Amino acid sequence: MEAVTPQSDFKALTGPARAAARILAIAPESQRNEALRAAAESLRRHSADILVANARDVATSKASAAFIDRLTLTPARIEAMAKGLDAIALLPDPVGRVLSEWTRPNGLMIRRVATPLGVLGMIYESRPNVGADAAGLSIKSGNAVILRGGSESLNSARCIQSCIQQGLEQAGLPRECVQIVPDADRAHVASMLGAAGEIDMIIPRGGKSLVERVQREARVPVLAHADGLCHTYIHEDADFAMAREILANAKMRRTGVCGATETLLIDREIAASLLPLLVQDLHALGCAILGDETARSIVHDLEPASSDDFATEWLDARLSVAVVDGVDSALAHIARYGSGHTEAIITANAEVAEQFLNGTDSAVVMWNASTQFCDGGEFGFGAEIGIATGKIHARGPVGLEQLTTFRYEVRGTGQTRP
Amino acid sequence: MEAVTPQSDFKALTGPARAAARILAIAPESQRNEALRAAAESLRRHSADILVANARDVATSKASAAFIDRLTLTPARIEAMAKGLDAIALLPDPVGRVLSEWTRPNGLMIRRVATPLGVLGMIYESRPNVGADAAGLSIKSGNAVILRGGSESLNSARCIQSCIQQGLEQAGLPRECVQIVPDADRAHVASMLGAAGEIDMIIPRGGKSLVERVQREARVPVLAHADGLCHTYIHEDADFAMAREILANAKMRRTGVCGATETLLIDREIAASLLPLLVQDLHALGCAILGDETARSIVHDLEPASSDDFATEWLDARLSVAVVDGVDSALAHIARYGSGHTEAIITANAEVAEQFLNGTDSAVVMWNASTQFCDGGEFGFGAEIGIATGKIHARGPVGLEQLTTFRYEVRGTGQTRP
Repeated sequence: MEAVTPQSDFKALTGPARAAARILAIAPESQRNEALRAAAESLRRHSADILVANARDVATSKASAAFIDRLTLTPARIEAMAKGLDAIALLPDPVGRVLSEWTRPNGLMIRRVATPLGVLGMIYESRPNVGADAAGLSIKSGNAVILRGGSESLNSARCIQSCIQQGLEQAGLPRECVQIVPDADRAHVASMLGAAGEIDMIIPRGGKSLVERVQREARVPVLAHADGLCHTYIHEDADFAMAREILANAKMRRTGVCGATETLLIDREIAASLLPLLVQDLHALGCAILGDETARSIVHDLEPASSDDFATEWLDARLSVAVVDGVDSALAHIARYGSGHTEAIITANAEVAEQFLNGTDSAVVMWNASTQFCDGGEFGFGAEIGIATGKIHARGPVGLEQLTTFRYEVRGTGQTRP
Repeated sequence: MEAVTPQSDFKALTGPARAAARILAIAPESQRNEALRAAAESLRRHSADILVANARDVATSKASAAFIDRLTLTPARIEAMAKGLDAIALLPDPVGRVLSEWTRPNGLMIRRVATPLGVLGMIYESRPNVGADAAGLSIKSGNAVILRGGSESLNSARCIQSCIQQGLEQAGLPRECVQIVPDADRAHVASMLGAAGEIDMIIPRGGKSLVERVQREARVPVLAHADGLCHTYIHEDADFAMAREILANAKMRRTGVCGATETLLIDREIAASLLPLLVQDLHALGCAILGDETARSIVHDLEPASSDDFATEWLDARLSVAVVDGVDSALAHIARYGSGHTEAIITANAEVAEQFLNGTDSAVVMWNASTQFCDGGEFGFGAEIGIATGKIHARGPVGLEQLTTFRYEVRGTGQTRP
């Protein structure tokens, strides 16, 4: 099997991408699904070739052991990639959804219909399977995509995309629905970020510095998520057992995800009785805890928490604690330190809960649930491209629907405007 | 009545704007509507002061007669401003709409709810009433706004905004929900465009060079519309009488609006019989017509239409004509020359109509209706902020709903994530 022959020039990708997008935009759902299943089969069929290409990448990589682990493909990881494409094929079609329709007094029938965005640009780091996932989600949502993965995984990426392109061809769709940048030249990233009008949206998937660079330099709209400085607020009317279970899950289920709780806010009324139990629970799970002055007066051996600490997303087994005086002061703390991601309140008081739900400017607000539920799969979206903390176009867990836009279809019978 | 005291520094506006936005975001609909009605009354009550301020602006303006006409306020224009605010108060509340809701297998109830964007920035030219309109739409949609009007209308703007701030105060809302930039310093525009995180969306309303500058320089998301190079395609199965009526309206109802048809595409099959009649209709209305070679072979005295002409938005009584061979060639012409705004097909053939509706990448596509219907009022939106030709967040006629974003509210009973 041939690997993808790289184009010599990035600009040579955008024209074919737009042309491919036009064809893909009107391709029936069945054809897009056929391409995905054929791509999955191609990945399975060429598993050996993919492993060879990947071994080349690994051999030339000078990175850390953890990085090489993310870079390395195995038969199991290739099968997971293929299964991922099969799963995407089974998702509901986001294209063509009728978002609203109405008839005007003059008889014009207006309908708002979901349509593909057009050409996506995905910039990602390290794990080669992200490229397969990105291609699959793009095809499913009727978008062409230009991919730029980490330079360390270029051989793997070319091989994977070649399989996906075979799947497209088998379904009668243009290979250029999915393209990768010609080579590891970092200038291609800048080209992508500047391709306003040629690329409709850029999705960075990687660490904070990648996301920030993209947001800073892009002239193309960016769908990105940044910090997840999430709060769990235990209100005085909380059920203690529920609060303990939820907090342990919200902090420690997985500490490296953006939905992990980083700061606990707890009402003064219950802090003396509940905080020691929470600390005990978390220490048993291996979590270090920092507390403000009041928290430390209740549990003496906490590390001190400063203002900088409350502004820090730990992404680790560390939790900051602030004792507050009711829901307004909890909301004030969140307004000051939050990143607009996910906040939760634990309480049996419905009125206070609604006040909290209405009172933040975050993408996701929860009542009596763990912040770790902020996830596309948990929301029922079937796929997750990321979690958007901006306010424009997409917000919170981003699923296939956010890879679409819409158009208005107006059906008349000869109406003219007075 | 005091005029607004300008702040000495732009940066001094954004903090208060954000604080005001937080209060406005949870203000009930009745309070926002009360502010709008009180603002309208304040405009009426201070009509004389507004006219004095406006006279100062007009006296110092060195602009053209047409510009001064747009700048000048009269008692009638002030009443129209006030009526505009009253009308906005009557619109349905865009905040708090439940966009979707569902329950997960684990019992979590998830709801997507419309929320204000936060802080808007509006940059507009010449007509002072645009500032009142902008303030009204912002307040209605729960957003704080920072306004930057043309420097020639600064006195008028300050006076108008003072009235609106009185309305806000009367309703118990912060004056800083609506602020104007301190002075005519052009650096304030650059400050607004760079205020990422402090301003959530910028809306430019004005000529092409303003919009393009904003789109080029803004680090803040921009809601803008640019070119309206709209097409009307008369397919061979069109009803001739309908086609003649629609084309005349689409071109000549108002030639300066972005929804005016700029290019006629007509099927070769019917060109010989229909084109002379269309030309006759349009010449009688004072429209000049340019045609491609085939069009000129049918109607000899047309001006020649070049490729550049097909790429020109006339905004005038001028129409380009291309003879095409069926819907695919019409779509190809639109793909090449269109600006993604509005396209229409005239035909009795439903199958071809659907192919056309699906086959462009434009914000609005019409069947048997005039492109001049591309307008927020005609769509039933009640207000129009502009027509967006981008694909992100808003597209087509932009109403109040596009001044909102959403959040997810998750209501649980203690669920933790496995």
